[in-house]
Amino acid sequence: MKKLLTTALLALTAALTAGAQSRTEVYTFPSEVLGAEKSCTVYLPDGYDRSQESYPVLYLLHGASGCHTDWTQKGDLRRIADEAIAAGMARPMIVVMPDASGEGPKRTGRHMGYFDVPGWDYERFFFEEFMPAVEKRYRIASDKAHRAVAGLSMGGGGTAVYALRHPELFGSACSMSGLLDMFPGRRSYDNAFQQSVADNSPVALLRGMTAEQLDGVRSVRWWVDCGDDDFLWKCNVDFYTLMRERDIPLQYRMRDGGHTWRYWQTVLPDALTFVSNGFGK
Amino acid sequence: MKKLLTTALLALTAALTAGAQSRTEVYTFPSEVLGAEKSCTVYLPDGYDRSQESYPVLYLLHGASGCHTDWTQKGDLRRIADEAIAAGMARPMIVVMPDASGEGPKRTGRHMGYFDVPGWDYERFFFEEFMPAVEKRYRIASDKAHRAVAGLSMGGGGTAVYALRHPELFGSACSMSGLLDMFPGRRSYDNAFQQSVADNSPVALLRGMTAEQLDGVRSVRWWVDCGDDDFLWKCNVDFYTLMRERDIPLQYRMRDGGHTWRYWQTVLPDALTFVSNGFGK
Amino acid sequence: MKKLLTTALLALTAALTAGAQSRTEVYTFPSEVLGAEKSCTVYLPDGYDRSQESYPVLYLLHGASGCHTDWTQKGDLRRIADEAIAAGMARPMIVVMPDASGEGPKRTGRHMGYFDVPGWDYERFFFEEFMPAVEKRYRIASDKAHRAVAGLSMGGGGTAVYALRHPELFGSACSMSGLLDMFPGRRSYDNAFQQSVADNSPVALLRGMTAEQLDGVRSVRWWVDCGDDDFLWKCNVDFYTLMRERDIPLQYRMRDGGHTWRYWQTVLPDALTFVSNGFGK
Amino acid sequence: MKKLLTTALLALTAALTAGAQSRTEVYTFPSEVLGAEKSCTVYLPDGYDRSQESYPVLYLLHGASGCHTDWTQKGDLRRIADEAIAAGMARPMIVVMPDASGEGPKRTGRHMGYFDVPGWDYERFFFEEFMPAVEKRYRIASDKAHRAVAGLSMGGGGTAVYALRHPELFGSACSMSGLLDMFPGRRSYDNAFQQSVADNSPVALLRGMTAEQLDGVRSVRWWVDCGDDDFLWKCNVDFYTLMRERDIPLQYRMRDGGHTWRYWQTVLPDALTFVSNGFGK
Repeated sequence: MKKLLTTALLALTAALTAGAQSRTEVYTFPSEVLGAEKSCTVYLPDGYDRSQESYPVLYLLHGASGCHTDWTQKGDLRRIADEAIAAGMARPMIVVMPDASGEGPKRTGRHMGYFDVPGWDYERFFFEEFMPAVEKRYRIASDKAHRAVAGLSMGGGGTAVYALRHPELFGSACSMSGLLDMFPGRRSYDNAFQQSVADNSPVALLRGMTAEQLDGVRSVRWWVDCGDDDFLWKCNVDFYTLMRERDIPLQYRMRDGGHTWRYWQTVLPDALTFVSNGFGK
Repeated sequence: MKKLLTTALLALTAALTAGAQSRTEVYTFPSEVLGAEKSCTVYLPDGYDRSQESYPVLYLLHGASGCHTDWTQKGDLRRIADEAIAAGMARPMIVVMPDASGEGPKRTGRHMGYFDVPGWDYERFFFEEFMPAVEKRYRIASDKAHRAVAGLSMGGGGTAVYALRHPELFGSACSMSGLLDMFPGRRSYDNAFQQSVADNSPVALLRGMTAEQLDGVRSVRWWVDCGDDDFLWKCNVDFYTLMRERDIPLQYRMRDGGHTWRYWQTVLPDALTFVSNGFGK
Repeated sequence: MKKLLTTALLALTAALTAGAQSRTEVYTFPSEVLGAEKSCTVYLPDGYDRSQESYPVLYLLHGASGCHTDWTQKGDLRRIADEAIAAGMARPMIVVMPDASGEGPKRTGRHMGYFDVPGWDYERFFFEEFMPAVEKRYRIASDKAHRAVAGLSMGGGGTAVYALRHPELFGSACSMSGLLDMFPGRRSYDNAFQQSVADNSPVALLRGMTAEQLDGVRSVRWWVDCGDDDFLWKCNVDFYTLMRERDIPLQYRMRDGGHTWRYWQTVLPDALTFVSNGFGK
Repeated sequence: MKKLLTTALLALTAALTAGAQSRTEVYTFPSEVLGAEKSCTVYLPDGYDRSQESYPVLYLLHGASGCHTDWTQKGDLRRIADEAIAAGMARPMIVVMPDASGEGPKRTGRHMGYFDVPGWDYERFFFEEFMPAVEKRYRIASDKAHRAVAGLSMGGGGTAVYALRHPELFGSACSMSGLLDMFPGRRSYDNAFQQSVADNSPVALLRGMTAEQLDGVRSVRWWVDCGDDDFLWKCNVDFYTLMRERDIPLQYRMRDGGHTWRYWQTVLPDALTFVSNGFGK
């Protein structure tokens, strides 16, 4: 019996890992801006360790109450990326998963989020320290044409804001089930995170842009995806509406589903294909 | 050579028609309400002619400038239905494709549309004459649980209005790229069709409904689908928004694409599956 | 902060559980045939507890080294079924997940499998005790037209064999990444499980059938699915080949992927749609 | 009325052609090898006329009884390519659709096919005259990394043979519903085409290859797709089997469907994505 199972499991393992010599690692470094250590998880595709090439990069952001290991542990990132690349549906790329978790066991403490809040300049850290450090440490083709950003929920909001404010840095931006405006129905803010979501609303940002700024936004390839049952449906529909009214090309999808990992695992392969076809352009 | 090709083509034909003894026919009858003859195309599934069973029915509506043969000639209805049924993705059903074309070579004359206009009570004709006649002529299970309506563009508008006004008649309603509100940007109406679209706006109808009427609307299974590049995107987003705000369950999809037969051919299999799973409920 | 998150999480929870008053439970009973207690996990769809109706049933089988909780814990069965039913892509049904695990921490002991082995008549138990008990305990429409069987890997083999031997019991059968013949490359058997796989090969069974038996097999709606990277590809291709040569209608799919839960989670919605459209026929 | 429709149609046209300044043209030139003029249809993507860049190229082959206009007229090539590129699912590329039609009104005369037959050296013409001429006339990045070949039915056979014989020329090869072995069941050949299919069987070619030749074949990215209802299923399954046994990586898909344009229109977007992700590698 053992022999049989061993044989089968070995065959299975071989089959599963064939062409999947990708790996993930955690990179931790001290941030001066934040006065703290921050970690990220990095996916290095099959072939990275055997080559001297530079690779395009995707920054992939987690949601509220999550951390830098979410996409690998709950999102099946490694398998999905391996399969998409092996099947010729995506290009080999490095995926960098930063950490914007807050304090506490639920990771929802006051440092949660992708924006600057009093005493915690996360956005400044991201652009001044984190991106340069990561792109130096790994062989990353460090230009707009080879850089994309994507994220889910709170990270979809981060994605949209980062690409709206820095269209010169990102070739593509993919928001999945994004928190693209202040929380639905909320009109007063009793804490820093809430205030920061209101202060950094992609919908509001877009609405206030000049013609010149909108030209910049048009230089980004946009993908916005949200389930038809998602509780964040309204801000996604509003963002789509504004983008169409401002005549900014975007891909917009609503599929069946809610605010779930199942949804994000379904969307991720399309997002990888989308950013892949933008790399180098 | 001929032999070879003959052999191949026979094999091919056999393969294609295996299990596809469906057929379509045109049924024409004189309408008293309209004072004119009207035709429809009817799809009868494989097995219909060999059985005594009653079948569920889907009314499938064409768009502006079209006619009752559109879905079969441009929409590949017969092949798509044959394949969906043979593959176990849809139930055998009768598909009735009525005609709401207008006069003239472009079929855009003043009788175009699914609503009543002065001198041409099409909606009255549909419910008082057409549906009863068709459901008498064919073996149709004639109740809400076995009746669905779907349509594209102008026919998507017809679909929504018919199901909003007669939730007791339709178990499911599927609007594809529907004209669900007055034409975008238009505020004055210089002809009867235009006026009829404004007078029969699904968005306006829904907005004006009482709690009791909304309960009726909830008894219909709704599917609304519109391409993210469609020029009718706004009224679809508005309809979805209202449905969510009124707490009416619906399936809503935005895929890639515009106002094209390619889009409708892509949506149709899902719509057939959706109505199939509602039949009998 | 807490307030905000609480609000958000409540909204989220409400969104996720809307229309999802399904539940799963474990049912354990003593088997005389086996001389042991066996458990199964049962999915009861939204509406079950509020109605008096009978429901169709799907028996859903796990793979080698697994147990009756696999489909819910690793396969996301409850969410996938909830979503498929809510979206109108499947009919409400009861899903019964039996247990064919073996002894030991890896569950690969000598009682593993869906067939009779010396001292452990699992197949007899399944048909004589288990099915009758389950269909008595739950409101199940207990006939071929409302009964389907499906399974993955070792459970795909079980699915095929059960439906080949008992076509009068199952309306539909779906094998996913099925072990449909003896283990690839193996010619001698050094244990009971291995021998039982060889003795109960669907490919061998099918090859030896009389014309009359094949007629019975044609009364089952077949769905066979296997990833193009699966290590069990060969026996799936062989089974498809035999079915076509014997002129037995089947749906056959090869998608991208290997022998993984990601594959089965992708296939499951289609399988639910497929069995749904067969129920009642 | 006219105004309304005009407005609507203009909006529609604008929507449909937005970002779709692609075009197709027919290129005809005299072949010395064949002693005849041959034409091809060429798709030039949006942006081609405004840039000086070189583009990757896909050679896209028609089937038996077809000609160089098939993919545009029956396959909706232009719309599908426009949409795939605009949606970020494929890279801008030139698609060259050659002509391998035979004589006569059914185009099945003795010159039909992609191989050399007595008095008509089509394969020699393709590689010595046609490819060089086309890649000189258009701005094509003329190397293996930027060149792909694909085709349906008889053209799927041509695709496989061309890539098996010239792995140094093609980065990717996609066979759809390919005629990958001699006609099923046929053992004697009563004409040149039939003989040429037998003489140029991809299955036979592959089976006879040396280890060195197989290494070459591994340098091509392979995609093989065939409907589960296709009458050519057997040779596709055989080709897949051989490729797996020879340990040559390939993507293999079987979806629902037969030997139909609907199938090829469904496969084409995936094929475009697949070749896109190979360009430049």
